[in-house]
Amino acid sequence: MKRIAIGVQYDGSAWHGYQKQPSGHTVQDQLERALEQFATVPLATTCAGRTDTGVHALEQVVHFDTDLAREPHAWVRGVNAFLPPSIGVRWVKEIEAFPEGEEFHARFSARARTYHYVLHNAPVRAPLLAGRAGFCWRPLDVVLMRAAVPALLGWHDFTAFRAAQCQAKSPVKLMHDIAIERRGELVIFTVKASAFLHHMVRNLVGSLVYVGTGRKPPEWLGQVLESRDRHQAAPTFMPDGLYLAEIDYDPKWQLPLETSSPLSWF
Amino acid sequence: MKRIAIGVQYDGSAWHGYQKQPSGHTVQDQLERALEQFATVPLATTCAGRTDTGVHALEQVVHFDTDLAREPHAWVRGVNAFLPPSIGVRWVKEIEAFPEGEEFHARFSARARTYHYVLHNAPVRAPLLAGRAGFCWRPLDVVLMRAAVPALLGWHDFTAFRAAQCQAKSPVKLMHDIAIERRGELVIFTVKASAFLHHMVRNLVGSLVYVGTGRKPPEWLGQVLESRDRHQAAPTFMPDGLYLAEIDYDPKWQLPLETSSPLSWF
Repeated sequence: MKRIAIGVQYDGSAWHGYQKQPSGHTVQDQLERALEQFATVPLATTCAGRTDTGVHALEQVVHFDTDLAREPHAWVRGVNAFLPPSIGVRWVKEIEAFPEGEEFHARFSARARTYHYVLHNAPVRAPLLAGRAGFCWRPLDVVLMRAAVPALLGWHDFTAFRAAQCQAKSPVKLMHDIAIERRGELVIFTVKASAFLHHMVRNLVGSLVYVGTGRKPPEWLGQVLESRDRHQAAPTFMPDGLYLAEIDYDPKWQLPLETSSPLSWF
Repeated sequence: MKRIAIGVQYDGSAWHGYQKQPSGHTVQDQLERALEQFATVPLATTCAGRTDTGVHALEQVVHFDTDLAREPHAWVRGVNAFLPPSIGVRWVKEIEAFPEGEEFHARFSARARTYHYVLHNAPVRAPLLAGRAGFCWRPLDVVLMRAAVPALLGWHDFTAFRAAQCQAKSPVKLMHDIAIERRGELVIFTVKASAFLHHMVRNLVGSLVYVGTGRKPPEWLGQVLESRDRHQAAPTFMPDGLYLAEIDYDPKWQLPLETSSPLSWF
């Protein structure tokens, strides 16, 4: 039995999130169906981070165990042939277990996750960004939003930014960085943390937008965090602009991770 | 009666081209339906350049005549409210007829059209570019492709790059420029001409790709052009990466044209 890791990219617009559902209309359902068609046996998969309906992934990392011996490029081409155009395998890597028995695990070996939120900030919506970016017509002040960031960095209880249906054991996470960059009509938020609660990025973006439009002062965000009260934060922002961008693993696993970002596509 | 010009952007992936069809599943059908809902009377429209199934527009220009007096921003917001997310009005401009009676016409006043073709050139397809970019896994040499361009510039009979069903009166067009730029895994072709024959950009890109992969030498493209024989050129390239980008009009019409390009989005 070998453990295999794969990098998966998807446009989440048309899917009911990552995680398997009876409807079969999720990324994991499509992926496992394609793996089974290629391998001719069912293969159970585990992912690094489940994404919601409408959320995209530049690089989701998934692992599974198999006896099948195939070259990585054969896996990539073979599985992609059975996937719809909006889901694709970008790379495949067979992972050796260490002598002491430590095994790679897509979820538990991940040290941090990075998400991008792409926001279209302009008076009129752009149809070519539909499903690909959030939209806000009120002008956003990036400098004000950046001023709200330091209060969020480090270890915190992020209950105020957590969805009611969140299943995480602990609301305490390590926030590594929140970068906010304007590029023409787009504002891009890049958020890196040890792990994320359900809706956490979209709730953070919603609250940062309150600061960016001047509706709330920068120091408000730290107060919301300290309140640990979901009702203090702004409403959850739309999923359209959210991209799971990067999973951070120990280099010893030698994963051929990509360093793509939505910025690099166009 | 006033003549009104509008700038329309659309993601063509889900539509059966621009031009009206009995199915109703085209950009023009959706646009005229939305205009009628806003204006409460049917409004017949004329566009600058009809696009095929799956082809996008950063900025299509359309005109129509109406007695309705509304501010431009009221037109934009009102019509957009009745359009699907993948189609949108970006601007509206009421156009004065000149004293000598010359009237603006979206199609006949256009002096030139510019298209972008975005090609993803990488070993493995990228799901987030599905429907948004053509795909070619063989490495493309941009320098070789550029060497083929000069033979195509100026006035030429483009019959060799014309689809059989093309309805243009003359196959003779003025090719202003073909720029080819690499940006990471993307190769972007920007083609500007007085007008285009049916499938002309996609046929040109298909033949340029033959040169870029080394299958044909750069001088071959001029020979294909001179042959005026469609069978000499390469097959029509997929529509996914094609964007109607810019319509060129005399500045006297004072259209609030955008100078967007697919490069500026991300």
